Formats: sequence, C-alpha cells, structure tokens
Amino acid sequence: MRNVNVALWGFGAMASGIAKVLLEKEGVTVIGACDIDPKKVGRSIYELLDVDQGERPDAFVTDDIGAIVDKEKCDICVIATDSFTKKVYPKICYAVERGVNVITTAEEMSYPMAQDPELSEAMDILAKTHGVSILGTGINPGLMMDLLAVVLSGCMTHLDKVTCKRVNSLSPFGKLVMEEQGIGLTVDEFNQRVKDGTMAGHVGFAQSVGMIAEAVGWKVDKFEQQMSPIVTDVDRQAPHGFAKAGDVAGVNMTGQGYVDGQVKIDMIHPQQIEPQLGGVATGDYIVLEGSPAVHMANTPEVDGGIGTIGMTVNMLPFVVAAKPGLHTMLTMPVPRCVMGNYAKIAFEEE
Amino acid sequence: MRNVNVALWGFGAMASGIAKVLLEKEGVTVIGACDIDPKKVGRSIYELLDVDQGERPDAFVTDDIGAIVDKEKCDICVIATDSFTKKVYPKICYAVERGVNVITTAEEMSYPMAQDPELSEAMDILAKTHGVSILGTGINPGLMMDLLAVVLSGCMTHLDKVTCKRVNSLSPFGKLVMEEQGIGLTVDEFNQRVKDGTMAGHVGFAQSVGMIAEAVGWKVDKFEQQMSPIVTDVDRQAPHGFAKAGDVAGVNMTGQGYVDGQVKIDMIHPQQIEPQLGGVATGDYIVLEGSPAVHMANTPEVDGGIGTIGMTVNMLPFVVAAKPGLHTMLTMPVPRCVMGNYAKIAFEEE
Repeated sequence: MRNVNVALWGFGAMASGIAKVLLEKEGVTVIGACDIDPKKVGRSIYELLDVDQGERPDAFVTDDIGAIVDKEKCDICVIATDSFTKKVYPKICYAVERGVNVITTAEEMSYPMAQDPELSEAMDILAKTHGVSILGTGINPGLMMDLLAVVLSGCMTHLDKVTCKRVNSLSPFGKLVMEEQGIGLTVDEFNQRVKDGTMAGHVGFAQSVGMIAEAVGWKVDKFEQQMSPIVTDVDRQAPHGFAKAGDVAGVNMTGQGYVDGQVKIDMIHPQQIEPQLGGVATGDYIVLEGSPAVHMANTPEVDGGIGTIGMTVNMLPFVVAAKPGLHTMLTMPVPRCVMGNYAKIAFEEE
Repeated sequence: MRNVNVALWGFGAMASGIAKVLLEKEGVTVIGACDIDPKKVGRSIYELLDVDQGERPDAFVTDDIGAIVDKEKCDICVIATDSFTKKVYPKICYAVERGVNVITTAEEMSYPMAQDPELSEAMDILAKTHGVSILGTGINPGLMMDLLAVVLSGCMTHLDKVTCKRVNSLSPFGKLVMEEQGIGLTVDEFNQRVKDGTMAGHVGFAQSVGMIAEAVGWKVDKFEQQMSPIVTDVDRQAPHGFAKAGDVAGVNMTGQGYVDGQVKIDMIHPQQIEPQLGGVATGDYIVLEGSPAVHMANTPEVDGGIGTIGMTVNMLPFVVAAKPGLHTMLTMPVPRCVMGNYAKIAFEEE
C-alpha cells in the first residue's frame, strides 16, 4: 500500500510542528511545504526541521503552491496559516478544486456553520463535486471545550447546562502571542485595544458553542462573548513576555450560548503568563449539569500548541478516508492517537 | 415524521430505567417489552413504571417476543438481559432476522471481537444481509474505561501507555449485585468462589482493552486479569449489603493488555460498598502517558446504572441511522446526550 502524501500550506510554528510529528509516523510522506518566508523558501524541510532525511524523498519549501497542491502530487493539504474562515476559504477552495483533501487548524473552521453558513455550504458543495473532504480541528476549538463535553454528555439521560473552563499558561508561547494577548499592557491600553478591535483573544467560542448545541439538539438563540484583562498583583516574567504588578498578565475570555433565553453553554477561558504567580492552577474543566452530573478535570491543561498538532496529525488519515464534503468533529470518527499505519486508515476499505 | 418504535427485551432494572427515560424523549415510542417475570407479564408498562400514559399508545409486557420484535412493529430492540456475547447472541440473531436493529447493554457486546471473533463476524454478516445495525454499549465498557481514553488520546502526538481507573461505590445496587460481588463474605469464602469461577466481578476488561488497542493501532499480544477481595477494617452497612470488619466489602478487578511484551493498557477497577468508610474517594481516572500527558479525573464517578441507561438511550437513534452491520463505539458517531428529536436523528438523511 502506498503512503499518504501530505502537502503543508504554511511552514510556521504549527505547520513545522505537524511536519515533524508526521515524519515519525508510518505510512505517510511529507511532499513539501509552501511558505512566503524568504529565509525558508528553497530549503529542504529536513534541514529546517533538523531531522535526518534518511531514505525519504526530497521535500522543499516553495513559494509556489501549485508546485505541491495537486491530486497527482498529494492526497491532503494541511492549511495552517489563518484563524478565520473567511481568510482561509480561498486556500481551501484552491486545494479542493485540485482534488486534494484539506485539514486546517483555522479555529473558525472547526464549526464554520456558526458564523459563516453560506461559505460552509459553498465548501460542502465544492468538496462533494471534487470528491474530497474538508475538516477544521485543533485542541480548542476541536476537543477540550467542545467535543470532549459532547462525549462526556453521552452518559447522561438529561442535560441542563454545559460549562467548559480552560485555564492555561501563555508562558510557552512566543513574542507574537504576547503581543496579540496584550501581555504587559496597562489596563487602559488593554481596554483601548479591545475598543479598537485589535485584541485577538481566543478565537472559537462561537464555533464551540455551535458544535455543542448541534450535537445535543439545542437551538442557540443568542451568543455573546466578553474579554477582560487579567491584572497581576506581582511582577510576572515569562520567557517572551513581562507584566509588572498592576498591568495585564493575560486575557480572560468568557462566552455564553443562550437556549430558550437561558445560558445553557457557558465558556470560561483565562489565558495568562506564569499563572502560578497569581495563585492559579491550570487545567481543563468540564461541568455538565443534569442527570447524572459530570465533573471532569484534566490537570494541568493540555498545551495548546502540541495539542493542536496532535489533533491535526491524528485526524489527517481519517479526512482522506472520509466521504466527500465539509466535516466537523461531529461527523468524523472519534479522535485517537494514531500509533499505527496512516495509509491503512486512509486507504483501506472497511 | 413518524416516531422511532422501540421494543425492549427484558424489563428488569436496566430495561425499565431505559423505558422510563425514553418516555421523556421526543420522537420515540416504546411499543412494548418482553419479560418472563409472571408478576409483570400482561401488565401495562406505564403502570409498572408509574408513569402517566397520557396520549401514548398502549404498551404491555409480554412473554412472547414474537409479539413485539418484527420490522412491522418496531425499528430497534433494546436487549438488556445478559452480560455475555454467547448468551445474548441468539436473541440478537432473532431480532436481526426479523429486520430489527439491536442495541444491547451486554458488556461483552461492546467489543465482541475481543473474545468472540467468529460470532462477531456472523453477526456482522447477518446484520448486513438484513440491512440493520447492532451495537453494544454502556458506561463501562462503552465509555469511562475505553472510549473516553481513546478520545482524550486524540490530542497526543505519541502514546506510551493508557491507565484507566474506575473507583465506584456499590452501595446504590440491589441484593443481586451484593451477591454477585461477594459482599459480606469472609476472605476464604471469597477466594473459594474465585476458584470455583462463581464470582462475577466486572465483565468487560478484555473488550475495553480490545477497543482501545484497535483505536490507536496497537496489537495486543497478551491479556490478563485478576480479582482480589477488598477487605474492610470497619463494619460497612449499605442499603442492601453488609460487610463486617475483616470481611469482604468489594472486589478489586485489575487487567492488563500487553503490546510488544509490555503493559500498555492498564485497567484498575475496585468496586465496594461504602467506599468512604475505607477512606476511598470514588471517581473515574484516565492517565495517558506520552506527549503531551493527560491526567483526567471525573469525581465522583458516573453511577454505573444511570450511566448505562444514558449511553443506551443516547446511542439508540444513531443505531437506527447507522449503515448496516455490527458496530462498536469506534464506528458510531460520538456519544452525546440527545435532547432533541430521536426520529430526526434516526430517519433524516444528512
């Protein structure tokens, strides 16, 4: 059986992390990556990843997507360049029109129906026309604040309310994330950026809420979200960010899905550097009210970067095998750490 | 859209609990139940369940399975009579041959391939021949010590070992379970019953281990399990059982799946009455070693009875909708608490 051939669109931290894991797996070949960074273009991915090429075929970074994304060259394209459906949509169409399956880390693509129903329908039709599949996934959205709550609710006879809380550390992240999340700003500066719409915060609450609601059969009649600064009492120093006492050490995102006028899906996601200095223990928490109640904790939290890499590589062979169309984690087989052969999953008839 | 019509095979604690929950749901009708208990035969299920019949059609307990299980009368049969594949197999065949889908709480049916590969193949062929689906599910096996570990591993790039621990209280259970689990026996009596093979313990480790291994792509080359008495230091009184100090208050089941000569799947399941009197806190715990590690706790544990009822009612409409054949939780959509219309899930084309 031949290997699953994978092209990468983007070769930043996420995509190169995905490539590195794929190189350790059986039955899969990375054929190349597309990136615009002139420091990467033309270089071998093995050299850039500091991985021994061994017997593997050559694979380079190119700035010409047409050189790698085509059904003659690859089975699936990993798109790790954007967070928003509208931004990643043209790239998805490009790959699909060339007969290539797509898996993307774009947060909004985990459940694009929530905010982009027309684009979702267009992608579904296009994928079916070309006989390929599309999936957006990641740790959050994708698992910790949505699919996992859905799965746990499976043991309940009645569900009243879902509360998902993810308390994580931003300390492992780089300068870009520090900037995006406003680490080190004064409270006034933070509030101004929220007002200006230049504070990124977490992307995906609308999608997580939409996924949970569809799964259990609720109709969300209102969705809201809020962003507030996490102000530190003490100086906090992380490898790539610093917040002095009284300034912003992180962002607390909260979101609510209303069903029949009540908050039935409650999302709480404070992200900060050095949370232990604020007396905060990190973790993923899910509380399901109803019968029987579920109180789940995963401590410490699953790291966002490595978790998203994990979800993407593990779902990849299932996207190749899936029936054509736009998928979500609800229409795919359950995620699992694939320790066996990727080609066997991707190509073997049941 | 018409309702999903459900027949129940067995009308004991589990099946009557399932019926009671189904009666609260939309788009589903319980058409009747089959049981051999002369105190139940001929009586209305509404009367037996102490539920107002309202506008619902009559539904009785019969001792003639042919009166309710037929594709003209029902879409799916819930079989809640046995724990073992070999025992439930003739009942499953009976329903399937009459064009009726099957969902069963029989523990071994959650992954019958583990210990009964030939019967599994026979059921798969029979189901496909008759265009219906078969699924075994429950809280354990079915979710807490298998599927949930699989789902959580989805965020990992590498999995070294799975440890599932379920610490639960037997206090809510009745006299039969007290007897099956040896509550109140002396240690000598307990050991004699283990030797005689008359101690039930937990049924399902082989199935849970098989399901996890298939999901992640491991080949189990050896499976072992052990049973030992939980001896209490103090007298323990539960509603339906009593163990005096020095005697048996429960059973500790352990099991191991070996992959390449190493224990890669480790199962620990101590069940006892009044665990708090032994200083034991109950809960469901999953530890996944690898990258990244996962440490999940659900405390207190999901009650086994209500949890199995939940899994069964929630998977029921998906079994009707599934493509024909023998399924496991790995080939079904992710479980979720179905709060919407059952018929919409069972009959609506995607």
